Amino acid sequence: MNRKTLTALFAMGIAASLPAAAQFQKPEDAIHYRQSAFTVMGTHFGRIYAMANGKIPFDAATAQSNAEIVAMMSKLPYTAFTPGSEKGGNTKAKAEVWSQPDKFKAAAQKMQEEVAKLNVAAKTGDIALIKAASGSTAQACKACHDDFRNE
Amino acid sequence: MNRKTLTALFAMGIAASLPAAAQFQKPEDAIHYRQSAFTVMGTHFGRIYAMANGKIPFDAATAQSNAEIVAMMSKLPYTAFTPGSEKGGNTKAKAEVWSQPDKFKAAAQKMQEEVAKLNVAAKTGDIALIKAASGSTAQACKACHDDFRNE
Repeated sequence: MNRKTLTALFAMGIAASLPAAAQFQKPEDAIHYRQSAFTVMGTHFGRIYAMANGKIPFDAATAQSNAEIVAMMSKLPYTAFTPGSEKGGNTKAKAEVWSQPDKFKAAAQKMQEEVAKLNVAAKTGDIALIKAASGSTAQACKACHDDFRNE
Repeated sequence: MNRKTLTALFAMGIAASLPAAAQFQKPEDAIHYRQSAFTVMGTHFGRIYAMANGKIPFDAATAQSNAEIVAMMSKLPYTAFTPGSEKGGNTKAKAEVWSQPDKFKAAAQKMQEEVAKLNVAAKTGDIALIKAASGSTAQACKACHDDFRNE
């Protein structure tokens, strides 16, 4: 990697988070990352939910691939609720994320567990199982949003 | 799923993309999604790149898990360069994405191929291989940004 390419990487923002062991250089980076991860997760979950509830045609393979993405994405956002990222960017995170960490962690784990079950259900191709699991997942999303996210 | 929960889902934005077969209800949704996918991909690629270039300590397992995420994310953004999403949100996409679709597709495939090679390299745990593959990946990122993304 020559200097010119490295400079270009910095300009692209890719290398901007390089220094030190911190995963995010700035609080805004952490906020932007976690919101991005939730956006991708929510988009793919929305497609499963829509299929499970008859809003778009059901396709088992599509449900399965979306569930795989949701399962992977569900693991990503939580490292980015870093100390110092309580404010900044356009975060909607409530102070309770940091003041009630055990409760927040439990809510995150609940979502991840429901998503894992949804992923198992999706592999069966059984729309009834997928519908039930997507309902439970949606409720876990909502519960965490109610407690930890401002509108 | 009762009506109350469904209403809550709409309020959360999760159900907002339900209608019809379109994957994105509004151009802004497609723009937000593709930018989010690139943000997550770039964050995890940045960590590999930083390790490969001695900016942060090298850890083989961390490189491997990040490469898995990059590989998965690399497949996601391109469905979201939909007709009608040339403008809107804060997109930086150049008109050439839509006017030179074959060239754009080739640039996307080049990145995906380099990322796939990076994922293979990461599994070896060999930092020299990872450094070489991350350099090639960075150049593929840059080449596409040069041609298809405004600063």
